[in-house]
Amino acid sequence: MTDTLISSATREVVIGFERPFVVIGERINPTGRKLLAAEMAAGDFSRVVTDVEAQVAAGAHMLDVNAGIPLADEPAILAQTIQLVQSITDLPLSIDSSIVAALEAGLAVYQGKALVNSVTGEEDRLETVLPLVKKYGAAVVAISNDETGISEDPDVRFAIAKKIVERAADYGIPASDVVVDPLVMPIGAVRMAGRQVFALCHRLQRELKVNTTCGASNVSFGLPNRNGINAAFMSMAISSGMTSAITNPLHSEIMTAIMGADVLMGHDPDCGRWISKFREEPPANADGSAGRGRRVTRRRRVAQ
Amino acid sequence: MTDTLISSATREVVIGFERPFVVIGERINPTGRKLLAAEMAAGDFSRVVTDVEAQVAAGAHMLDVNAGIPLADEPAILAQTIQLVQSITDLPLSIDSSIVAALEAGLAVYQGKALVNSVTGEEDRLETVLPLVKKYGAAVVAISNDETGISEDPDVRFAIAKKIVERAADYGIPASDVVVDPLVMPIGAVRMAGRQVFALCHRLQRELKVNTTCGASNVSFGLPNRNGINAAFMSMAISSGMTSAITNPLHSEIMTAIMGADVLMGHDPDCGRWISKFREEPPANADGSAGRGRRVTRRRRVAQ
Repeated sequence: MTDTLISSATREVVIGFERPFVVIGERINPTGRKLLAAEMAAGDFSRVVTDVEAQVAAGAHMLDVNAGIPLADEPAILAQTIQLVQSITDLPLSIDSSIVAALEAGLAVYQGKALVNSVTGEEDRLETVLPLVKKYGAAVVAISNDETGISEDPDVRFAIAKKIVERAADYGIPASDVVVDPLVMPIGAVRMAGRQVFALCHRLQRELKVNTTCGASNVSFGLPNRNGINAAFMSMAISSGMTSAITNPLHSEIMTAIMGADVLMGHDPDCGRWISKFREEPPANADGSAGRGRRVTRRRRVAQ
Repeated sequence: MTDTLISSATREVVIGFERPFVVIGERINPTGRKLLAAEMAAGDFSRVVTDVEAQVAAGAHMLDVNAGIPLADEPAILAQTIQLVQSITDLPLSIDSSIVAALEAGLAVYQGKALVNSVTGEEDRLETVLPLVKKYGAAVVAISNDETGISEDPDVRFAIAKKIVERAADYGIPASDVVVDPLVMPIGAVRMAGRQVFALCHRLQRELKVNTTCGASNVSFGLPNRNGINAAFMSMAISSGMTSAITNPLHSEIMTAIMGADVLMGHDPDCGRWISKFREEPPANADGSAGRGRRVTRRRRVAQ
């Protein structure tokens, strides 16, 4: 039993082996979203506000915040975005950057205990990110690659995760504050990508006793009906012990697959969350169209 | 690696650890379908024909045939139904009855190697069904309950499965012709029902080296959005090693969850079946409505 606590000023979320799965909304990220990137660089954050509200309404438990815009002042924009997001939601945040100065700028303004996204097994990352995580009392996503790249050998990825957990301990960061990303490769390119991740999740829980996360959408890269693959992947990953994911809560197939997996893992007592979500809404017909009858009014859902 | 071969006169289906999951269509079953029961009892099989065609079109790999109608001549009706079904599809069949005389009547007219559904660990069932299975060279579904009922203890259910496999061997039936049903309880009543089945599937594959099946829809009994629970269950069961299920192929969520799980298990080489199913069909929108664009023309699909 390992619990990883993440918080805002007024709300806590716990990622844990015997807890409901934690959905970290992926939308606040200008990577691959040209319009959002241009707007953020120009100081227009209206789309960020919309993305926050939509993800909260869709049932995200945390939000990932990334401000990676080429040639922009990423530390300043990330700090500004985090302050804005924290002014409109109390969901805890994941602070996402590959630039250490941006992580520090984000941590400096963040209210609560953040999830830092991320550190890898690369020496220069370990030596710069882990001290920050310790200084701000945060938790951290540990990505299981290093200077040699991403290994296709799950044993190598496990060994890198183990190294990061051990190094974090050297800095006084407990294993319960390290959330390992076993790295999800596109299944269209790597046939065993799914089974590698499932096996790694089992081992990371049993042997390293750490929580896990991933950028889930990557698994379906290049395939049609990506939501269908992503949904199956989420259910299977949860049954393998994965405890959180950075994904798109606006895709109802994915959220249904996650909530259904929570029920089947025994993590939704009396199926209460499932029933309250679906009891008023008739199931879709076999042809995929919406069923007849009254639809649930969308309202902001509280996490956990 | 265990392969269970089932056949009709002209088609083979193989249930196996490293094979695509086998979907056994559940629709030809008058239990709980009053209209179908009345029609079949009166000699009207038009709805059976429709059910066969719809399940074949939806991608079923085998069909279950049940003629359990109270006060009717079940052996005669089951034999008649099997002959009819075999005249309109070459999918292999599962012959489903709790009456031994009906199983025998079905086996007597069946062309190919059938799957007999089912035997339990009860002594009188073992002593009457297994000789029939051997006589007709069939395979058999072994349900892991006995005279004491259905145990909530997975160890007891495993022990019953083991007893059936051993007894089958006494009759000259190899373990590869025994497909164990670990028994899926409703998750709304038994919170650990999902994890029990997942753990049992792992053990049955690793220790008994047998294929598995289940009546999958049972898991969602009493809950809203049953297809959502069933779909998550199928993906999770497949990642735990389940190799076939008796379920409703007309529910697209369930078929998508199964096909996605096949992709993620590495059982859909080059994602070929996934791509050919979905490449022309745009994914559903986030609100569950159908996406825009041309839809795939439904056509009969060949199994495996």
